[in-house]
Parts: sequence; C-alpha cells; structure tokens
Amino acid sequence: MTGETHITLAHGNGGRFMRELIEEVVARALGEAGPDTDLDAAPLELASGATPMVTTDGFTVLPLEFPGGDIGSLAVNGTVNDLAVSGAVPKYLTCGFILEEGLDMAALERIVASFAAAARAVPVEVVAGDTKVVPRGQGSGLYITTTGIGLRPDGVRLGMALIRPGDAVLVSGTVGDHGVSVMLAREEFDLKGNVRSDCAAVTPLTLPLATNPAVRFMRDPTRGGLATVAHEIARATGYEVCLSEPAIPVLESVRGVCDMLGYDPYYLACEGRVVAVVAPEAAEEVLSIWRADENGAGAGRIGTIGEDGGRVRLETELGGTRYLEELEDDPLPRIC
Amino acid sequence: MTGETHITLAHGNGGRFMRELIEEVVARALGEAGPDTDLDAAPLELASGATPMVTTDGFTVLPLEFPGGDIGSLAVNGTVNDLAVSGAVPKYLTCGFILEEGLDMAALERIVASFAAAARAVPVEVVAGDTKVVPRGQGSGLYITTTGIGLRPDGVRLGMALIRPGDAVLVSGTVGDHGVSVMLAREEFDLKGNVRSDCAAVTPLTLPLATNPAVRFMRDPTRGGLATVAHEIARATGYEVCLSEPAIPVLESVRGVCDMLGYDPYYLACEGRVVAVVAPEAAEEVLSIWRADENGAGAGRIGTIGEDGGRVRLETELGGTRYLEELEDDPLPRIC
Repeated sequence: MTGETHITLAHGNGGRFMRELIEEVVARALGEAGPDTDLDAAPLELASGATPMVTTDGFTVLPLEFPGGDIGSLAVNGTVNDLAVSGAVPKYLTCGFILEEGLDMAALERIVASFAAAARAVPVEVVAGDTKVVPRGQGSGLYITTTGIGLRPDGVRLGMALIRPGDAVLVSGTVGDHGVSVMLAREEFDLKGNVRSDCAAVTPLTLPLATNPAVRFMRDPTRGGLATVAHEIARATGYEVCLSEPAIPVLESVRGVCDMLGYDPYYLACEGRVVAVVAPEAAEEVLSIWRADENGAGAGRIGTIGEDGGRVRLETELGGTRYLEELEDDPLPRIC
Repeated sequence: MTGETHITLAHGNGGRFMRELIEEVVARALGEAGPDTDLDAAPLELASGATPMVTTDGFTVLPLEFPGGDIGSLAVNGTVNDLAVSGAVPKYLTCGFILEEGLDMAALERIVASFAAAARAVPVEVVAGDTKVVPRGQGSGLYITTTGIGLRPDGVRLGMALIRPGDAVLVSGTVGDHGVSVMLAREEFDLKGNVRSDCAAVTPLTLPLATNPAVRFMRDPTRGGLATVAHEIARATGYEVCLSEPAIPVLESVRGVCDMLGYDPYYLACEGRVVAVVAPEAAEEVLSIWRADENGAGAGRIGTIGEDGGRVRLETELGGTRYLEELEDDPLPRIC
C-alpha cells in the first residue's frame, strides 16, 4: 500500500488509493478465489436440479479480533451458516467493507487474510466486493456486510411448518461460547478467561442432514442465542418448546462468567452451532452424525416440541420450571 | 414501533424490538415485494437461457436525504445500475442496514419507503435483509449495503476487451449532478442551489442496448465520475480516451458551483447516467434510443477511443489539451 500504515479517506474515493487497496490487500489475500475487480457484476454458474438461495448479514462485532475468530471469519461463516441451515450448499459470497479512517492497515490485512481463509475452508468463491471509507468517529474500525448464494438440492424440505409435537430438539455443541469470548476480549469487566468463539462453518453438520426427511428444521442460534431460536419456533408453530436445562451443553467457563455477570447463556450468540428439530426416532442418528465431526463433538438432545402453548419452557436442574421470555434488553450488544 | 421515536440499541439485538422494527417498518414498506422474515435464506427463480450476475455496493452518503433522492433510493439504484451496465436484467436485491443509535424513526421510515418505491420502479424483488444497530458515535445515521442479482441474456457480449480505436464514447446525460446536489445538501459552504441528483435506475437506457453487437461496453460513472471511467478504459485497453470538453453535458448550475469551489465536474459522481463505448456507425442510433427516455434526454457523444497511449485526453473549448489524471484526492467524499 505504498507505505500507508492506516486507512485514509482517499482509500474510499474510487481513485488510485482505493484501487491499490483492493488490488494489493483484498485481491491478493483472496487469490484466485477473489473477484475480477474490472467487472461491475460477476457471472455465476448455478447448476440445474437445485434452487438458488440467497441471504445477507451485516457484521459489527467489537473488538474486531477475539479468541477463535475475527470479523473476517465471522462475516464468512455467519452468512454461510444461514445458507447451510436452509439446506443449501454455499457457492458464492459478496462482501461490502465499510472502513473507518484510521484503521490499522496491519489489522485490516490480518482480517482480510482470515476472511479469505474462511472462504476457502467452506469453500465459497468471493465474486464481488465493495469498499467504503467513513471519517474517524463515524464507524468502529470495520463493518462487513456479506451476501451468500447457495444451491438447495431439489427434494430438500425444511421449514418450521413441518415441526410436529413430540419432535426432538437438538443442538450441535455448547452454547454461548461466541458471546462470552467476544465479551472477554473487550476486557471491560477486568475478567480474564480462555473461552474461544465457536465461529465456524456448519456445513459439515448440515449437508448430511438436508435431504433426510426426518429433519424438519435447522437454524443457527446467533443473535439472541438458543432462547431466541426456541421463541421463533414457538411463535411460528404455536407449540410449546420444552427445553431441559441439564441437557443443554454449556462450558463450565461460560457458565462461570454468566453467573458472575448475571447473563443467561441461552440468550448468548453462537456462531458455529446448529439447532435442529427432528422426528424423535431420528434423534440418535443425527446426533451420531454430528458427533463424528469435530464441531459436533458436544452435540446433545436438549428438548422436545410440546403441545399448544406457544411458549418456551425450561425444566430446571432442580425439577422446577421457568419460561424463557422473548429477548428485550440486549445482554451483550455487538457480538456479531 | 410501540411509540419509539428513535432507534435504540435494542432494535438490533435479535429480540422483540428488532422483530417489531423489521415487521412494522421494513416489511410494511416493502409489502409483498419484501422478504419472508421467517427464512434464513430466500429461494430465487432464475430462468435458463441467461447467466445469473451478482454485484454488491455499500452506501454511506451524507446527508441521508438530498434533492432528488436519499440513501434508500441510492442503495437500490446504485446496485441495480451495476447489473444494468453489465447487460443484465435486475431481478433480486438484498439489503443490510447498519443503523446508528439515535436515528430518527421518521427519517428511517421515509428512507425505507423510498427504498421500497425505488425497488418497485425497477422492478427488483427484495428477498433478504439484515439490520444491525451500532452505538451513537460509531455510525452516521444509516449505512446500507445492497447486493443485486440479475440475469444476463445469452448472447450479450460486453466488455472493455471489445473496445477498438475509433469507437465513440457516449454519455446519457449531464454529469456531476449527484455530487453537487449532495454537496449542496450539506450546507457546508453556505451555498444554495436547486441541483437535483440524477439518482435513477438506468435499466431503460441499458436494456435496449445489451444485445446490440455495436455496443462494446457500458459503465455507470459513480465514485470518481466520468474521468474515472475514462481512466479505467484507458488502463484496461492501453488506448487513449479522447474527450471533447464542449461536448460533455454539464448543467450551468453544476458548472457554477464547481467553478466557485474549484471542483472538476468530470470527477463528480453521477447516479443515473451511463457511459457507453460503441462502434462509431452506431452512435447516432444509440443516442436516439437514449434521448427517447426521460433520463436520456441530455445524451451526447463526448469523445472517441484513440490509438495507443493509455491516458485520458481532454480537448478544451479553446482548442487546448489537458490530461485528466487518475483521481487521488477525493474532492467530495461520502457522495454514495
């Protein structure tokens, strides 16, 4: 970057600095998987026998880097995971970067490298991108918005409308890791801990299930966490979602931080987990598929779809019951 | 929005306030053209006999509203236009909103309504969206990133590689209107004026040309303006781009503001114009197609592709010559 150590407004003006930034930092990191920077729009190859699916997500996480990930890997995996839980095979990604004047160029290079590595790991091809620079004090270092395009094979049927009373509710691993790892990285509370974000693509967990008719519905519990996914199911189906507290996997370290600060881990974001609702007779099969993958090692059956009620009931360790209300106050903003 | 007059952090937390914001403000404005808010990813119908094309763009314009448009209509048209100049028919749009805490809810409602109206006018279907809220002082009211998906009919051949010496360079209307209208709306210079942005979808101008083999290349001159498009052509082809200053349409009011402030209108952004390079014998035909549309009324032939040189030469009114250099300093940041 011709010796620039920080982002300036000129990196966003459509001229030489912007071209060099894109060519030397972004395109180099993405390599052959990156966009053709001379095109206004990029062509896609979408095979027949499948439905193209699209999703978009903005990422404003603070700090930009945290144990287990950064805003780059998060922006890839977050959008890939929305495709994955829809039963689609992720194919293409676009990215829009909003840089704040003064952003450290070395940090940007690390994040772009992480973005590129995450895209290669899925794999998804980064076909289009855009960069804007906003003045100091009107951003927060870097915001990224990604859009993902995938192919859902014909025959995939997934949706909340397929959920029936008696279905099993599964989760692919511990909940709340991402939220707590980001929170600890902020060093706001003078707390230390070694919780790593679960940030990862969930495609190894979803692709083997997408065409299994016993699988009704999948969703990744991001903002608002497991409790919010359970609420969405309860709202849409009108059924009660009954969760068993002792069955919900939560890391000791995550539970410890939550107890100390009064957070409820069920509302904290995951970025590499899947919640699935499956026919009860398929629960063990799905869990063994998940547990064979490193990111599904902690998978468990955590609940059951009940009859009418439209609420989320948590059966506590001591045999009590509490209802998880819809999230109103944000316990941990800016975690994704 | 249960009486809220301003955006709060809770509108971005994945809980009730966010759901209400999306259902009551965004989904209502978009109506049936809007996304199904219960889905993680939206299915697309993409006809065969055409290549799907994708593009993405971030919008950080300041102020959010200006004569002739706002960040909502701009975010639709800017992305639609990148598809259009690629010869594609725009079909689908996704949007990512990054709201700043404290944003006036009435302004947001106006902008979302404008976004929806612009999408209907194209038309493009808004199939997916995302909302984040960042704390006061880490945004600028509202940033929008849109991604567009369109279909380029088989047989469309457009690209800078097709450009040949002797080709004509055309522009569909006056240049610099958008940049000046946004600048005046900032009221920074104590200047008043009635310049309206040219913000509009250019599909009526591009669709009749996309399959015409005499049309080599089209691009919308946004950031960096006409001069930057000319540079991109010169760089990519190695040919000289010769522009005739008296032939370039510039509104008197735009020229006046530029003279006063020392701006060069050729570097200022347009948001509803097309620059096309066409075979010389097709120039008049293309101009008459453009002039038949209200947004092409001011179209003109502004230059010619020269021989080797790789520079942008401007022949001035007085018979002199100056070279337009690549943009380095941003004359007007935050105009898109």
